[in-house]
Order: sequence, then C-alpha cells, then structure tokens
Amino acid sequence: MGILSSESHNSEEYTSVIVVGATGDLAHRKIFPALFALYTENHFPKNFQVVGFARSNLSIPDFKFKIAEKLECRSKIAPDVCGLEKGRFLKKLFYVAGSYDSEEAFGVLDEFLAKGERDWNPAGVHNRLFYFSIPPSVFLSTARGISARARSKNGWTRCIVEKPFGKDRHSSDELSQGMARLFAEEAIYRIDHYLGKEVVQNLMVLRFANLIFEPIWNRSTVQSVSITFKEELGVEGRGGYFDEYGIVRDVMQNHLLQLLALIAMEPPVSLDAEDVRDEKVKVLRCAAVLTADDVLVGQYGPGNGTVGYTEDKTVPKGSITPTFAAAVIRVRNRRWDGVPFYLMCGKGLDGRLAEIRIRFNPVPGNLFADLSGVSGLPNNELVIRVQPGEAILLSIVNKIPGLSTKLDNKELDLEYKQTFKGAEIPDAYERLILDVLHGDKSLFIRSDELEAAWDIFTPVLHYLEATKAQPVTYPFGSKGPEEAVKAFRAKHHLK
Amino acid sequence: MGILSSESHNSEEYTSVIVVGATGDLAHRKIFPALFALYTENHFPKNFQVVGFARSNLSIPDFKFKIAEKLECRSKIAPDVCGLEKGRFLKKLFYVAGSYDSEEAFGVLDEFLAKGERDWNPAGVHNRLFYFSIPPSVFLSTARGISARARSKNGWTRCIVEKPFGKDRHSSDELSQGMARLFAEEAIYRIDHYLGKEVVQNLMVLRFANLIFEPIWNRSTVQSVSITFKEELGVEGRGGYFDEYGIVRDVMQNHLLQLLALIAMEPPVSLDAEDVRDEKVKVLRCAAVLTADDVLVGQYGPGNGTVGYTEDKTVPKGSITPTFAAAVIRVRNRRWDGVPFYLMCGKGLDGRLAEIRIRFNPVPGNLFADLSGVSGLPNNELVIRVQPGEAILLSIVNKIPGLSTKLDNKELDLEYKQTFKGAEIPDAYERLILDVLHGDKSLFIRSDELEAAWDIFTPVLHYLEATKAQPVTYPFGSKGPEEAVKAFRAKHHLK
Amino acid sequence: MGILSSESHNSEEYTSVIVVGATGDLAHRKIFPALFALYTENHFPKNFQVVGFARSNLSIPDFKFKIAEKLECRSKIAPDVCGLEKGRFLKKLFYVAGSYDSEEAFGVLDEFLAKGERDWNPAGVHNRLFYFSIPPSVFLSTARGISARARSKNGWTRCIVEKPFGKDRHSSDELSQGMARLFAEEAIYRIDHYLGKEVVQNLMVLRFANLIFEPIWNRSTVQSVSITFKEELGVEGRGGYFDEYGIVRDVMQNHLLQLLALIAMEPPVSLDAEDVRDEKVKVLRCAAVLTADDVLVGQYGPGNGTVGYTEDKTVPKGSITPTFAAAVIRVRNRRWDGVPFYLMCGKGLDGRLAEIRIRFNPVPGNLFADLSGVSGLPNNELVIRVQPGEAILLSIVNKIPGLSTKLDNKELDLEYKQTFKGAEIPDAYERLILDVLHGDKSLFIRSDELEAAWDIFTPVLHYLEATKAQPVTYPFGSKGPEEAVKAFRAKHHLK
Amino acid sequence: MGILSSESHNSEEYTSVIVVGATGDLAHRKIFPALFALYTENHFPKNFQVVGFARSNLSIPDFKFKIAEKLECRSKIAPDVCGLEKGRFLKKLFYVAGSYDSEEAFGVLDEFLAKGERDWNPAGVHNRLFYFSIPPSVFLSTARGISARARSKNGWTRCIVEKPFGKDRHSSDELSQGMARLFAEEAIYRIDHYLGKEVVQNLMVLRFANLIFEPIWNRSTVQSVSITFKEELGVEGRGGYFDEYGIVRDVMQNHLLQLLALIAMEPPVSLDAEDVRDEKVKVLRCAAVLTADDVLVGQYGPGNGTVGYTEDKTVPKGSITPTFAAAVIRVRNRRWDGVPFYLMCGKGLDGRLAEIRIRFNPVPGNLFADLSGVSGLPNNELVIRVQPGEAILLSIVNKIPGLSTKLDNKELDLEYKQTFKGAEIPDAYERLILDVLHGDKSLFIRSDELEAAWDIFTPVLHYLEATKAQPVTYPFGSKGPEEAVKAFRAKHHLK
Repeated sequence: MGILSSESHNSEEYTSVIVVGATGDLAHRKIFPALFALYTENHFPKNFQVVGFARSNLSIPDFKFKIAEKLECRSKIAPDVCGLEKGRFLKKLFYVAGSYDSEEAFGVLDEFLAKGERDWNPAGVHNRLFYFSIPPSVFLSTARGISARARSKNGWTRCIVEKPFGKDRHSSDELSQGMARLFAEEAIYRIDHYLGKEVVQNLMVLRFANLIFEPIWNRSTVQSVSITFKEELGVEGRGGYFDEYGIVRDVMQNHLLQLLALIAMEPPVSLDAEDVRDEKVKVLRCAAVLTADDVLVGQYGPGNGTVGYTEDKTVPKGSITPTFAAAVIRVRNRRWDGVPFYLMCGKGLDGRLAEIRIRFNPVPGNLFADLSGVSGLPNNELVIRVQPGEAILLSIVNKIPGLSTKLDNKELDLEYKQTFKGAEIPDAYERLILDVLHGDKSLFIRSDELEAAWDIFTPVLHYLEATKAQPVTYPFGSKGPEEAVKAFRAKHHLK
Repeated sequence: MGILSSESHNSEEYTSVIVVGATGDLAHRKIFPALFALYTENHFPKNFQVVGFARSNLSIPDFKFKIAEKLECRSKIAPDVCGLEKGRFLKKLFYVAGSYDSEEAFGVLDEFLAKGERDWNPAGVHNRLFYFSIPPSVFLSTARGISARARSKNGWTRCIVEKPFGKDRHSSDELSQGMARLFAEEAIYRIDHYLGKEVVQNLMVLRFANLIFEPIWNRSTVQSVSITFKEELGVEGRGGYFDEYGIVRDVMQNHLLQLLALIAMEPPVSLDAEDVRDEKVKVLRCAAVLTADDVLVGQYGPGNGTVGYTEDKTVPKGSITPTFAAAVIRVRNRRWDGVPFYLMCGKGLDGRLAEIRIRFNPVPGNLFADLSGVSGLPNNELVIRVQPGEAILLSIVNKIPGLSTKLDNKELDLEYKQTFKGAEIPDAYERLILDVLHGDKSLFIRSDELEAAWDIFTPVLHYLEATKAQPVTYPFGSKGPEEAVKAFRAKHHLK
Repeated sequence: MGILSSESHNSEEYTSVIVVGATGDLAHRKIFPALFALYTENHFPKNFQVVGFARSNLSIPDFKFKIAEKLECRSKIAPDVCGLEKGRFLKKLFYVAGSYDSEEAFGVLDEFLAKGERDWNPAGVHNRLFYFSIPPSVFLSTARGISARARSKNGWTRCIVEKPFGKDRHSSDELSQGMARLFAEEAIYRIDHYLGKEVVQNLMVLRFANLIFEPIWNRSTVQSVSITFKEELGVEGRGGYFDEYGIVRDVMQNHLLQLLALIAMEPPVSLDAEDVRDEKVKVLRCAAVLTADDVLVGQYGPGNGTVGYTEDKTVPKGSITPTFAAAVIRVRNRRWDGVPFYLMCGKGLDGRLAEIRIRFNPVPGNLFADLSGVSGLPNNELVIRVQPGEAILLSIVNKIPGLSTKLDNKELDLEYKQTFKGAEIPDAYERLILDVLHGDKSLFIRSDELEAAWDIFTPVLHYLEATKAQPVTYPFGSKGPEEAVKAFRAKHHLK
Repeated sequence: MGILSSESHNSEEYTSVIVVGATGDLAHRKIFPALFALYTENHFPKNFQVVGFARSNLSIPDFKFKIAEKLECRSKIAPDVCGLEKGRFLKKLFYVAGSYDSEEAFGVLDEFLAKGERDWNPAGVHNRLFYFSIPPSVFLSTARGISARARSKNGWTRCIVEKPFGKDRHSSDELSQGMARLFAEEAIYRIDHYLGKEVVQNLMVLRFANLIFEPIWNRSTVQSVSITFKEELGVEGRGGYFDEYGIVRDVMQNHLLQLLALIAMEPPVSLDAEDVRDEKVKVLRCAAVLTADDVLVGQYGPGNGTVGYTEDKTVPKGSITPTFAAAVIRVRNRRWDGVPFYLMCGKGLDGRLAEIRIRFNPVPGNLFADLSGVSGLPNNELVIRVQPGEAILLSIVNKIPGLSTKLDNKELDLEYKQTFKGAEIPDAYERLILDVLHGDKSLFIRSDELEAAWDIFTPVLHYLEATKAQPVTYPFGSKGPEEAVKAFRAKHHLK
C-alpha cells in the first residue's frame, strides 16, 4: 500500500499542483502544509508550481501570507534553514480566483498554469495535479471545467477527490459516471485520508510480512473485531453539511469500512494497487448487506454545558440525522464466517479514539480455571491504535510476579512515539499526495470498491430515512447511548 | 507450576527448617535470605525455628551475626520495621555443629530440634524441612543420619536436595536408589533453582493461558528454539568442583534441559505437580539421545587479562573439562519433529545472559520480497529473557514510519521492571522453599525426569571422556569458539 | 496397541492355559475356539497344555467332545488338515473339576498342571495363564485359590479377568485392591473384548500413521462424535445378571468409553502399553463427571411379539434397570472443549450396529448455499463401523454426474470384506489372548483407567438408583425411545 | 463452475448453432453428438436450427447422412424412441458450403440462417452460436466473415473457439486482439474440453463444499502435486499439425495448467464465472516463470513395432518437437510456497491416463517407525482420476487384518462407475456447449488467463527453440525417458 512508491523524480518534468478550494479550512490546515512537508523532505517534484484556485478575490501576496502561517518544518530542521525553505516554497506558490462553474475561469487558470510551464521549458513534460477541496455541489462543474479547459497538454492530469462520494449507491454511481465521462479511472484518486495514516499503512505489513499473525487471523481464533471512532467534538459550525450526511455516511461507510477491508481481506497476489484493491473489493462483496437489525443509531442531546445536536443553530429543527452509529457486519467467507465485525462511531462522546481491536477466543479446556475466578481468564486482544498515540498492543495473560499467584492481562506494546523515537510521523495527507505524484493508487478507492461499500449500507440508510427512525439520545460528552449499545451488543452476542 | 500453592499456614503445626551446610556460600547468599524474605512476606509458618547445621565450630551468636549481614527487607518495608523483623527472625535462628557422616551428630541435632518443638507444644504436629546444601560426597551419609535419627516423629519430613544428581545415568540411579531406601519419593524435593525464576514460572501461563500462542507453537511455524546461558565469570575459586563435572553436567543437562521441557511439553491434564511432570518426562523421552555429532565442547584459554581455564590453580593441569558447550536436541514427536533445539552455555564469555529464543519461519510467498532486499524479511522471534532483566519480547516486522518505505523488526515488549513497576521480583529460592513448605512439587524434578534427562546426555558424555576429546579453545571474555560454533550451526542447518 | 507383539515363542518354555469356568457359554463359544485358532495359525506356544476348570463333574473325554464341536479352522485350511490339527490340539486339552472357593481344589489343579509341566521338562520354565470366565461372586475366591496354590513356581502367572469390574468406583476399587493383594498389577489383564476387534485396533493406526487426519481431529473441525451400540436381542435367559448391572454398566461404561478414549486421546510417546494407557487415562480424566442432565435411560416394553423387559421371567417385577442409555460426555481439554461425545447403547432395538461416527462442521462461508437448498450442504462424516461389516467410510460432497447440477454426499469407502478379500478377520479373543501370551498389555485396561472410567459414571448411577428414576419405555424392536432421544439431543445441541 | 447454469430455455427465442468446419473429425465425433445429446436430454433450446458450414461441396442430405451415423442416445432411451428423436433432430440440421476467407460466403450463410429465423418468427429474438472447429490459419478470416456478415441482428452472437490460442504470448495476444476488434470478450468462449469433464467440474465441489479438505490443502501438509497425462497413441496421421506445436503447447500449457489452477486457486467470492476466473488468473500469476532447468522434453523413437516420431511421414525429418514433457511449477504464495507442482504429459507411452495426484507429507514423529521398516510408512495420497474410469481415491495407512502386524496403504475410493450406477456421464462437450447456450462462462478461459498461462511457458519454449534443444529419446510404448525423468525429479527433490 503506497509502499512501493518509487522515490525518483524526473527532472525532465514540471508539475503543477492546483488546489481547487484553496481558501477552505482543509486546504489551509492540511493540504498546503502537506505539500510543504513533501517539499522540505525532498519528496516533491524538482520543477513545480503550486496554484490555489477559489472564488475569493485574493491577491497572490495575501494568499501567500495566509498559507505561510500554517507551514511548519520537521523539528530536525533548524529554524533558519526552515525560514529559507519557506521562502523558496512560497516563491512558487500562486493564486487564481474564479468561479467553479465557469469554464472560462478554468481557461484563465489554464493560461496561468501554461505560463509557468512555458517559463520552465516549453518543450518539457507538464503534469497537472488537481486537488478537489470543494463541496459536492460544485464537484462535477469543476471537473467539467478542468476537463474542457485545464488539462495538461503533454503530461499527466490527475484529480484527487474527497468524500462525500454520493449519498447512496445511486448518487455515487451518478457521480462516478459523471466523472468517468470526463476522466479515465486512472486519472481519479479518491482519497480516504485514513488510509494515509502510518498505522493503517502498517496493517498490510503487519499481516503479510509477519508469519505469526496468519495462523490466528481467522474464525477459529478470533471472537470479534471492533473498529471504533470516537470524537469529543460535536457539529459546532458545520452542522449544515453534516446534517445532510450523518455519521454513517461521514465516517462509517468510508473510514471504518476501509479499515475493515484491510483487516479482513485475503493476501493479494502482489502489492500492486490493482491487486490490493481487487482483494479489498472481494472482501467487501463477501460482507452481508446490512438490515435494520444490524444497525443502531443515536444522536447527542445536551450535556456537559453543550447544547444538543438539534439545538445547534446550523442544524434543522427536529433533525433525525444520527451523530452516533453502531453496526455489525458479517463477512461470509471461509475465513470470517461467524465473526462479528463491530463498527462504532460517534460525535460528542467522552473521548477521542480511533482503533481496531481484535479480540481472540477464550482458551479452550482452560487449565487455569481455578486460578482465574468466575469471570475466567481475560481474552487475548490485538489493538491497532490509530489515534491518539499510534500504537500496536498485544495483551497477553501473565503471572503477576510475586509469591502469591495471580494471573492478569498485560500488554506487549509497541508505541510509535517510544519505539521510533525522534521520528516524526508524516501526516496522512503527505503520504497520499506523494502517492498521487508517483501515480501509486494502492491507497485510493477504486470505483468498484465504492460500489461495494455503498451496496452494504444503502438499503439500511434508505430504510432509516423512509421510516423516519428516531435515533436514541445520549448526553453530549458521555459514552454514547450506553443502554441501547448494551442491548445491541447482546443481541449480536458480542462479548 | 507452583502456582496452585495454597497460601494457608496451619497454626497447629510447628516447622523446623534445617539448613545442612549452613556455613557454605549458597546458604549464606541465598537460602537464609530467602527464608527471611518468606518470613517478612508472611509466607512462613507461624510457628517455627530455623537451624543451621554444619561442621564448623561456631557459637550461635557468631552464626546469627554472620547470617544477619545478608538479610534484607523488600524496599516497601521501612528500615525500622525491617530492623524489628530481623530481630524477631534471628531470635528463632540457631546453630548446631556436627559431622555429616556421624549418626550421633544427627542425634544431637534431633535433640536440639525436639527441644524447640516441645517448648512450643509437645502434643502438636512437628514438621521438619532439611535443606541439603552440601557436596555430593557427604550426601548419602547426611541422608542416612537424618533418616536414622532426625526424622520428624509426628509431622512431615522433607528434604530439599541440590544438584549434582550424579554424573551420569548410572551414578544418578545409585544416588536415587540410595535416597529411595531412606526416604519416600514424596519426601524428596530435587531443586533446580531455574524453575523458581519468575519468567520460567510464567512459561506455562504464557503457553496455556493465552489462545494466541498454541497455533504457532509447532513445527509448521517454528524454525528453531535456542536456549542460551552465558556467564562472564570463569571458575575462580571453585575449579575443583567444576572440573569434576564440566559445563554440560553443571548447566546444560539440568537448567537448559528443564527450560526445553517447559517450552516443548504438551499441555498437561491439570496443573497438579504429577500431571505437569508427566508431560515433562514425556517430552524428554521423545528427545533423541545425543551423539558426538550433536555436541560441540569448548574451553576458555587466557584472555582479557585472565588466565585460561587450565592455568587456574584449582584446575588439574591438562584438564579437558569443557567450560563451553553447544548441543542440538531433536524432539521426535508430532509437534516438534524437524525443529532443532539449540542449547548453548558457557563460562568466561563476553556477557551474562539467560534466554529462550523461539525463531519462527520466514513468511511463505513473501509479498515484500522486493522491499526486503537480498537478505529477506527478518523472521519473527519470541524471546523469553530470564536474565538480566526479565522480559518477554516479540519481534515483528513493521513499516518504519516515514515517507520512505522501509520495513524492519521491532519488538513488542513486556519488561518486568517496567510493566510491574514497584513490584519486587522474588528470588527463585523464595518460591521454591515456599512450595516445599506447602508440599507442592510441581517445580521440582521427579526421579523419572532425572532418568530421562540423563538418558539424553550420558552416552555422549561417556564418549567424550573415553575418547579424551579436546575442547575447542576460546579466549576468556570472548563470544566463545566462534568459528567452531558457526560450523556446528551450519552442519545442523541452524539459521 | 497390541501391534508391537513380538511373534516369537520360546521353545524353552512350557505354557499352561487354564480356563476357569470352562463349561460356561463364553468359554465354549469364544475362548476355546480362539485358543484353537491361535494354535492353527502358529501363534500358540510350542509346548503347552490347555486345561478346563469348573464345578461340573465331567470326564476329560466328555469335555473334549463338548469343546471339539465348536472348533473351526480358517477356510484356507483343507478339511483333512483341519481334522489332524483338531486331533493334535485336543490331545493337549484336559479338564479338572473343582469348586471355585476351595483352596484345595486349586491344589488339585496345581498338581495336575505340574504333572504336564514335569512330563515336558522338570527343569524348564513353566508359565501359567488363567482365564477367569466366571461370575463376579466367585472372582476373589478363585484369585485366592490360584494365588495360594496354583501359581507358577518358575515362570510367569497371568490372569485374564472379564468385566464386570465392580458396579461403581467403590466396589471396583474393592475388587482391584482385593486382586492387588494377591497379584501384581503386571499379572492382571482386564479384558474388554471390543479392544481386540480389528477396526478398533486400527483406530490408532488410522489416527497416527496418517498425516491427513490430525489437522481435522479437533474442536475446530469436529461438530460431534457419536458412539453407538445397538442390539436386536433383549435379555432372553440372562435377565438375572443383566438386571443387576443394566446397560450403562454392561456396555457404556466399558466398551463405549474405551472407544471414546481411543478416538479422543492425544498421541502417546510410543506404542508401549504404558504410554498408550497413560494417554487413555489422561483423556478420561479430562471428561466431565456426568450429571443426571447428561444421561437418558430407557427400558424396552413389549413389541414385535416379544414381552417387555419387566415381563421377562428372569427379571424382577418392577425393575427400573435401563436397557437403553444415551449420554453426552464433555472432554474438557484443548482439543475437544465444546465437542459433545454422544454415547448411545441399547437392547431390543431395530438393528445390530456398533460404530463411531465423527461428524464434521458445516463449511463456513459456503459458496454452494444456492445449490444446496434450505437444509444446506450435508456435513462430512467419518464412520468407523465395528459391526456388522467392519468398514471405514468417509462421506464427502460431490457433484452428481449429469447435466443438471446437484450436489450430494457420497462415501469414500473401505470395507474390510471387499478390500481385504480372502483375509479372515481374527476374532477379538484371538488377538487378546495372543497379547497375554506375549505379555503385551496395551489392549487391556489398567487399574487407573478403570478408576477414571468409574469416576465419570458413578455419581449419575447412584443418583438414578437413589431417586428410583423411571426409564422411558420403548417398544421392543423399535428405534428406542425416539421422542425422548430427540429432546435429549436437542437439549445438548446435537445435530 | 458451470454449476450455476440456469436450466430454463426461453421459448421466445430461436437459436441457430453453426458449426464452422462441420466436416472435420472433431465436429463429426464430438460436436454433433453433443448437440444431439443435449437435444435428447431436453437441454437444448426449444426453437433451433443446427447448420454445418465448411468448404466441401456437400448436399444437405449427404451431410445429414454422414452426421447421423455418429448420433447415439443414452442407454435409458428405448431404440424406437431414439429413432424418432434422431429424425426430429436431423430435420433441423442443415449445411451451407463456403470458403472461410470469403465474406461473401458468410453473407450466404447469413441469408440461410435468417430464413430459418424468419420462418419461426420474424419478430422474435434470434441468437447465433458459432462453433469454430477450424485450423488456426483460417481463424481470423472466419471471425471477420461472421462479424461483418453473419452476426445476429437482434439476439446474441457467441463464438466457441478451440485451441491452439497462438504459439506463445505474442502470437496469442495478436489473436486475442484480432478477435477483440471483432467481438466483445463476452461473446468469446475459449474452450478447454478438459474443463467439461465430470471429475474436473467436481474439483471445486470437492474443495469448497467439503470441510475436511481445506485444512490439508496447503504447504504444511502437501508434499507435491502431480498432474499427469499419458497417451498410448503417437501422431499417426496428424503429425503436421502436432509438429508445429509440440506436447507442451498441445497439452501442458492448456489442459494441465487448467487443472493446476483449479487445484491451487484460492476460494472465489462466489461461483460466478468472473469470480472463479479471477482466482484462476491470480494463482497463475503467482506461478514462477519456467526456466530451462524446470522443464524436461522427450521424443519417442521406434518401439513396439511402431516407427519413431521423426520417421512418421507427416513429420519433418530431424524434427526436435517434443512428444513428451515434464515440468515443475512453483506457486509462490502463502498456500503453496515450496510445494512442487509436477506436470507430465506424453504420447506413445505405455498407457492412457489423466490424473491429479496430491501427495501428502510423511507423518512427523512417526510412532510406527519400528513397524514400517526402512522405507517408512507410505504417504497419504489423494488421487483425482480423470481417465480412464473417473474416480476419487484417498489412500490411507491401515492395519492389515490378521494376527501378524502389518501396516499398508489402502484406498478409500469413490469410483464413478460404481458409485453412480446407471448414470451416464455426459461428454465434456455437452456440458460446455450447454454452458455457452446459457451464457455461463465459468468453464471457459478468459483472455487474461490465457496471457498468464503463456507468460509461464513462453520464455522456456523460446529458449528450447533457440538452442535447438534435443529431446531425450524413449521407445514408443514405454514409460517415457525413465532415466532422464528420474534425474529430473531428483533435481527437484520430488519423491
């Protein structure tokens, strides 16, 4: 996954990176800093320009000033060197204003880009990478504009697109087909930034570069797999967008399902992007389509001094959009038949956490029954923590040292911060943009993957909407709808 | 293993602990401190006396003074409380002088013990625990003395005996039979202090209280098992004893073979001592008898400013006694057929280490071949470190965080010092003496275990002696006979 | 099991085989024919006499005449040769009458035996094998008589004893201890004739000489193991003995439990009798003690023109002795935890059958779900049929040939009659008596095995008797108490 | 595979089956009889015509007469009924003569077909199935003719094409691309008649509808897989064609490699043709490209009264075309790494045989070593015999019944003839043509499968040709080049 990226950069090529939606929050916080980090780490093309494109009327100096404030160097780089690096990078940063639905605007952009390209070398190869950091409503018009007016004439053109990829199988297909009419599938990079995180990239290494996990990675030994995503924040300020999608579409159907696919998939033939994605599609297709029984939805009410979801000003009154969801996915194949995959995500909870937890079965014929009391020995667990504090933890039962005899779970651990001291873990966006520059698609979602993912969720989403199913309320800042979760887990025999 | 010891002490009983050889080094450094630790930890019998017995003419106060200097409290005990505890303990510590081969002397001892017992309660139960901390030459005469004159009249009598248990199958049988004529097998506790170490006690917990190890604990996944014991010291001062036995008998045939048995044995029916030892005997009986091809012996020469073994004053000139040995043991059963168990031990080496290292096979059909270079991916390993710094380490292959793609082995670790902060790990002797007080034999060697162990080693020991095989020389303080080891490992296909 | 018997016979020895209870039905039908078969097959000692001992006043010629009528040769032996063989065998067959509780009678027997021994060679080795074919009431007195008066003076003395070995743990221990005071354990051969059957002997070969069964011989793949014994006959004529014991003691606690042990045990260290029996004891000790919930008992009523059990003249009125029993045994170890062992046996049923049926789990993630209908694919089964028609059958799912697509179970089969054409399968008694002659104990029950077997059954037997539990009635000649069996199986989740 | 074919036929459709090359041997012996068998078994479309097309100037009656003589009914059909059936079928059989490279001729054919279609129902759906039973030289011209002139106007058009699919990766790609310009991949059915054989169709059932094979279907348990094809015949009469291709291209690269793929592939997501073929491609891509070291070639010389290959009149003098080949293929994935797949095929050998033989590893820690002699226990084997006499055989080690103790391999067997008594096993062509009628492609070769297959063989074929490697000679009617095979197997550690 992304790990075969060749590191070479062709000095005979010139690359324009265009951030469409350059004045937005994501662009500001993540994309430009990631571009700069790639630059300081020598992972950027040798010859390049970075161009912001957005509706706002901003001067280039004002734009540079705004972007500059978020650029940071790795701590190993001395402050003065960092200053020089920033200067050099900003020198190649530009801005073009224009409307997303005006082909003409893209004509202007094209002209601007062409100028930089010509100045470098009119006869060289000119690549263009467009990062779509824009709302879904202007998505296709932007794509049309680029396709019609701003494609590279003699190099590659690649588009990074962000979720939401539609709201269900139907709208997703429409979007895909709309894009497909404008760009070949090879040119489209559907980003799920979770796939760029270090621990997530390590999942395939963990599974396939280690002998010891394969024998325990199946229904004989695994009792359940839990994939959890908890946020402390609510919708402060972006209720409008969120309310239209809800937590299932915003987090579960993409981020959590991607993690499931990486955990559950069969070994690919090779690490090539197509082979890896073939296996991800296969395992998603083995997953049973969710029914209403398989899903629990919740919504936060007031709590901890914060207003409830429906009281938020940006949220429509009486909204039944879930801010919390739990689901049990059944992967009906030889490896996983009978093992529940428990997905859980929510906003306004009591902590921030993203992790995969593989819980193993109890020990059969337990010799230590007398020592381990009524509750029995704790089960082994393998935890892959994505945040906070990336880590791999394997809990095993040990004799607690001492003359008395007690057994307890202790963790064999590998905390990134401690194990890889001094290493700065790159942001997910750095890895992903780098892969696009290299044309490595393994960490991006292929269209059939997207289809398979929507197939799992579409019917239950439609059902919840059609029946106006009321989500269970939980206080903001709590553990979620605890009683309902307990009952839901019991119904699915989750321990 | 020792982990089912009931913790109760009967207040209707009175226990005498007699250390035979009370003035020796081991008694001084290990046995009395262990007794005192059990006392301060409330694991000692409520009513007791501790009596030293040895040849030296010492007054009781002189003896107490000598012993007192090595007694220490756990750090959690305040110094003044510790002082009080010492005082109370020393009050019950006595000394009787006498010859080991004089029955009369044991009569005197018996009279002394009886006095303490009577003073407590003439009608109570009086148990006697004899710790044989004496050279093999006076072993049987001591046993005869105790049996004839100093047995408990109305409680149990138990004998803790230390290696050497003979020099080969024949002499070991003689010793066993000699003891058997005097004491029932139930009364004899053959100690191997390695079995009292925390990490070693944890081996059975690790294997049988965790689900995840069983599927990888066999010939399909394990490439080899190495059991290593390295000492920095040479024979300084005790060359006489050592030269008679050599490293194979002193370390390999007992300590290392016991570790092998615990790693390789099948799950027992229960944790009862007999069931555990049944399985240990079984696996030792599956081990192929060693031939000269399976063993490499070495002897240290001068090095690092230290004289060579044969130049030591306490060593006979021209001695061919090995101070270093390596052996490959083949366990010919369904689980282990084809997996070499590599045992290695030596004195005068470059470090102090005792560990078990289970090396797993390479990953079949390795997807990461291109990334892992000519040498391939590192193999997974599980290391159980006995000393220094008890720990369990599981090395796994990880992606090294960063934009470049590198894989490397990193360790999931569980270091006792860090995981069990503040816990003081009891000395092996504390655990073992406590088990004897409770009559729990699981950590002690049964006579058929001893027979099976000698059966593996006796022919090759006789062969080496009969052919006067010259050990390979290595410099004191070095890694051992490196070239010879390399060739030996290659011959046995050890990687 | 029995398969390591050396085939050599020492011509320097003379062996007397004494059948105590020589006029009984078993002796007549099975024991003497088995002795003769061993003789004709050259598996008998070179120098021997066979002596019948019983209460009846019979002349030797009358005895010979009675025995002769059941002697048969293998079909490969020509009739005239067979006649000669019979003549030679009968020449060495004798009879001594006497009471089982009279030491004097055994003195007479001894004198008779000694005469034959002397006539052969007074200085040779004289072995004596006593076959106890007598009721339990005279068991110990017979043993006393032999021990006191009729032991061999200068060869071995071995006793073959038949069930019943007591009625519960207590009475069995009494019997064992009674025997132990008279004979060493090595001299006692407790016979379970099931262990002598060809297919049963083959069980260990099947399991341990084939690679392919081990990976599927455990809780991951096995759904249940059924061990069934059905007889068409009722108690005609021997109700007295049977009523005292009932079907659980008569069949289940010995024959069926022995089969369970062979199916479920771990691989032994070697094929030596002690190693094999160690493993059998181990697995029996892992079996949970049965409670009333785990057992179902039945009794046949009238049916098919036959009177019901309690109407039989030899049965006490109102007897609640079961003629049918089902039980579920749980083996609580690493291999079998969670797999029910279903034991079922009965008299007066609709057929004659003894078999072991290992039923495997359904296929996870079944690809053929659409093709296999609501009831799903049939499960794989391995059947070891003991009678009638010894065979090994492995049922697998196949595509039925043809253009339509249907799947069905078909059997890979190995029928002894067909596979080993012309081979006459020796009677179980031949194998077992041969093993006694060779001193091979692997097919005989060791005393601790007997204890473990009684430990499983004793509490529930006592409970049934104490509560006067009424067995469920079923018609003679039927399938047994079908409804009750169905409910019992459902309760234990047996499919 | 083919097993999901729906059986329904739409009565609103009319199907023309056109056999191009209708006068050839294959058409005569196999294709028309298969069409007739489908017809009598009610697996043929309700409304149809069958049209032969070839160069020969034949009248329709003459053609009917020629075809009629090979038509046969299943034995369950009474002769008179059979006669009626033949009559009805022949009524719908026609013939059109024309040149394969004349578009005009296909225009004539089209007109003929259209007439039948119109006569049935001009408004109905008219499907056309073209069976290419023609030499490679006229392959593309025929496709062009059909594409240009004879496609169905309002139903489907499907083409069944036979090997050879080129002579190497390059020529195969040319052919594929040529076809791809004329027909969509969906319309092309590349036939390998081996895939239509009952036992071969059963392979997926065997593997995936039975629980017990999965645990033993991997590198831990399998020692080797042999796929063998032996013919008694030489090239009598068709040396011209054969000499151009040789045995590797004629048999090994297609038939044997297809069997390998079915044995070695991972479980597909579903039984859909694309899913099954995805897995076949995957496993072929895991196979290492063959080098000269991995292949042995031979050629028959004179023997048994038959002339040698190069003496055949239809064979060029001095030809080095192999008539025998052996190859070892390594599948480098998690399941098979290290297991050799041994492919062997030849003409002019001592028997006729096609089978797959899975040989399992020896038993580790063999308890029966003493009983099984120096050569050890025989290994378990699973044999899937394709011809003669389709069967599944599982050889296991048994105790041979009797008082002596011998172990030997015996077979659990399932012979089709015996197990499915009375069932007539359909010819492979029936199954395959039926699947084409249903549009089920699972038993046909997809273009990427063909590419992967050629990738394995192309380099070594080129090497053999470039170096003019001389095949090893063996006598006609012998076992092949025995010494060379022995050396070849030894080199590859095949036992």
